[in-house]
Amino acid sequence: MTQGVAPAGPGPCRMVVMASGAGTNLQALLDAEAAGRLGGQIAAVLSDRPGAGALERARAAGKPAILLRPAGDWDRAVLDELARWQPDLVVLAGFMRLLGPAVVAAYRNRILNIHPSLLPAFPGKDAPRRALEHGVKVTGCTVHFVDEGVDTGPILLQAAVPVRDGDDPQTLHRRIQRVEHRLYPAAVRLVATGRVRLEGRRVRILKGPSGGRGAGPRPGAPVREGGVAG
Amino acid sequence: MTQGVAPAGPGPCRMVVMASGAGTNLQALLDAEAAGRLGGQIAAVLSDRPGAGALERARAAGKPAILLRPAGDWDRAVLDELARWQPDLVVLAGFMRLLGPAVVAAYRNRILNIHPSLLPAFPGKDAPRRALEHGVKVTGCTVHFVDEGVDTGPILLQAAVPVRDGDDPQTLHRRIQRVEHRLYPAAVRLVATGRVRLEGRRVRILKGPSGGRGAGPRPGAPVREGGVAG
Repeated sequence: MTQGVAPAGPGPCRMVVMASGAGTNLQALLDAEAAGRLGGQIAAVLSDRPGAGALERARAAGKPAILLRPAGDWDRAVLDELARWQPDLVVLAGFMRLLGPAVVAAYRNRILNIHPSLLPAFPGKDAPRRALEHGVKVTGCTVHFVDEGVDTGPILLQAAVPVRDGDDPQTLHRRIQRVEHRLYPAAVRLVATGRVRLEGRRVRILKGPSGGRGAGPRPGAPVREGGVAG
Repeated sequence: MTQGVAPAGPGPCRMVVMASGAGTNLQALLDAEAAGRLGGQIAAVLSDRPGAGALERARAAGKPAILLRPAGDWDRAVLDELARWQPDLVVLAGFMRLLGPAVVAAYRNRILNIHPSLLPAFPGKDAPRRALEHGVKVTGCTVHFVDEGVDTGPILLQAAVPVRDGDDPQTLHRRIQRVEHRLYPAAVRLVATGRVRLEGRRVRILKGPSGGRGAGPRPGAPVREGGVAG
């Protein structure tokens, strides 16, 4: 089955970003929006942590910054808050709390996540540390649609990142994050400008502009074939 | 625990290549040896299949080409044949038959294999097809030491290869193989010239020449950070 994914309505693609941490991926998305490179607009930023840097970054960018305290029926609370903002697309940017099946079902193929490994390798927590311990020479990051599993949904974009002999989990994670900050805005733009089709679990990227919603050239360059990391 | 791996003896590193198929990776190794880029010498080529192209390529290069028919005590037959050639290093190049624990133990950390995925993703058979079906955007190839598991041993080198929207298993596998043909000779050279150390399951590559056995510059270039495949 082939199906297009977001945006559903007319007008620019509306997004809600959900973040728990310092918000560096959020910042990359805010910067892309400010530069006219996001293909849509961030309507609000939600966080589950009172002190999250992401909330501060949202306020600094003039966006509604909403603290959603985990209590009672979490999925209901998330659904109610999202309903206020009517997003075409929900963008998880370091959001550390799982979304339940009701949320995933309500926003089927309209929730994106970014993960610091080349999935399906190293899903779940501490991916950079586990990649190092396994001794891989190439890892990377993955933007994927969220389904009911942990980091199992259809893969939209991936980028490779070399592991260096002297790496510890922190240096490797920072190198991956620098790539994430370019990959995630590019991936969001593809969805926001209607250039993404799902065929089963394979994601197809349509070429060229799709008509008047800020579509542009392909993001980034292809992975260079045969780059060797050792 | 840190330990060096092959070569054990004095003189150039002696290798036996084992191959079941057309032998394109064997050819890349033979070409590297002929060009003085392998860091050692191929003493013999073993195959388990009578019509294997690998045997023909070995003969064409003036190498002993030995058919080892699977019958009786396979591990014993492999050990006996290897003992005739006294290899420092055993190089599996499309060898489709598992080596048993006795062979692995006798040549601990001295058997290399190449696999058409970025391990630990997609071990075992049909890796390119399974990568496509999973919908990954980046895959690649891995040179690893052989242990008792299937494609689970310590990773020596990896290279990323982009998946394209129009790929089928054959086109993707061919693109990976083109990279393998550069990666495998480079990996073999590192081992043959004494530049590889094992630290647990992490493989460290020592910099620069290690003294008079044809060591040279690092093979290939690093994976370009942040190459995006979509």
